[in-house]
Amino acid sequence: MAKPLILITNDDGIFAPGLRTLISVMQHLGDILVIAPDKPMSGMGHAVTISTPLRVHKLKSEEGYSEYSCNGTPADCVKLGHKAILGRKPDLVVSGINHGSNASVNVLYSGTMAAVIEGAMENIPSIGFSLDDYSYSADFSKCEPYIKSIAENVLKSGLPEYTCLNVNIPSVNGSPIKGIKIARQAMAYWDEKFDQRQDPHMRDYFWLTGVFRNRDEAEDTDEWALRNNYVAVVPLHFDLTSHKTIPLLRDWETEGLN
Amino acid sequence: MAKPLILITNDDGIFAPGLRTLISVMQHLGDILVIAPDKPMSGMGHAVTISTPLRVHKLKSEEGYSEYSCNGTPADCVKLGHKAILGRKPDLVVSGINHGSNASVNVLYSGTMAAVIEGAMENIPSIGFSLDDYSYSADFSKCEPYIKSIAENVLKSGLPEYTCLNVNIPSVNGSPIKGIKIARQAMAYWDEKFDQRQDPHMRDYFWLTGVFRNRDEAEDTDEWALRNNYVAVVPLHFDLTSHKTIPLLRDWETEGLN
Repeated sequence: MAKPLILITNDDGIFAPGLRTLISVMQHLGDILVIAPDKPMSGMGHAVTISTPLRVHKLKSEEGYSEYSCNGTPADCVKLGHKAILGRKPDLVVSGINHGSNASVNVLYSGTMAAVIEGAMENIPSIGFSLDDYSYSADFSKCEPYIKSIAENVLKSGLPEYTCLNVNIPSVNGSPIKGIKIARQAMAYWDEKFDQRQDPHMRDYFWLTGVFRNRDEAEDTDEWALRNNYVAVVPLHFDLTSHKTIPLLRDWETEGLN
Repeated sequence: MAKPLILITNDDGIFAPGLRTLISVMQHLGDILVIAPDKPMSGMGHAVTISTPLRVHKLKSEEGYSEYSCNGTPADCVKLGHKAILGRKPDLVVSGINHGSNASVNVLYSGTMAAVIEGAMENIPSIGFSLDDYSYSADFSKCEPYIKSIAENVLKSGLPEYTCLNVNIPSVNGSPIKGIKIARQAMAYWDEKFDQRQDPHMRDYFWLTGVFRNRDEAEDTDEWALRNNYVAVVPLHFDLTSHKTIPLLRDWETEGLN
């Protein structure tokens, strides 16, 4: 039986340690195409590159393994890998391991997760992995058995169509990870502040800063799982419709404008 | 009674004609803060600026009306307007009028709609307006009564918490707009192709191109409404959880890893 073909990307860039860990796990599971941004792309959300040309640079190509860097976004990488390099759908798209959590509303800002949602839009089973530790030298080794297990489950059983997974892994010091929880996206938010400064030419500028706050006390969320040392697995779709709101707005409908 | 305070942004940039139309409509409804990108930011998705300083340039300030350009993304503009300039929540965030449709999956790539979703995340009633015409010289005048009517409805009745609206307006030549339909996001997709070229130095580069295809034949979608000359109003939330998938994955849960 042919090995599965796995497309790997991230948003921290081609040289990030988290990507290297993800590659080393995926090499046990199939043939690999790595295509990742040539520089960090954190916070890029679902940006795509339409006004500048995309360039792809081959770094390595051998039997069952090839690696490219790209000047585009994570979402561009998935499109390019699928349509321009492979010319066919991979069996799996994986993205990460992100340096920092993409749980709760962080999923909306995340380039890592945009790549995964892009995979879902192309109806490819797709998984994003993030470790709840922002440091460059974070210890990714404890993630490995969980990443392998979840990827094997997806390769074996697939996912419902147009669905992907947002997997967040707790950062544990000393204590072991407790297990896996299937969860929903917590209703948390960023309490933002702008740090206003003056440059040497007396012109103002701002740095975006903020504190992440969870207002969702329930125990079925990704935030609860992470805070309690579980790997949080949230299935995602890309239908943003608030279906329950539709009937509430029905009386706004008109024929012509009265 | 105090006039409502309305924050206006877009992703086509501060000089775009669509923004100017939106401002002229909103000036009848309340006090205005315009804060928009200093250059086009189409396709930026929900990008936020965390690695470079944000700069804000005051263009105009008079009683009930102020206008700023910003070097950040549309989502940055909402955060800056709310937290750094106003220091309080506006009563309404509006974004657009986008030059081109943001119906169906286009909502995921759209900077216009990222600003609106950012507003919803801050629990501010927020509306994105887009005209299904990409040309710079598109005729926005037919949009005006619909924009006014929908914004007045939202100012009067509010929206459910953490909910916003994606409003797409058909481009009609000659025939009138038929009315307003409350709709859901259509399951369409981009059939992408990369146009591969060589630069004068014999290095390859790619342009992202594609054809939008709707695979959703139902008559309750934003695409159906647009194609049938209706204004499509889709209520959105930002919970990406595929709730129906959660029970299907329950047997992946573990305590420890077996």
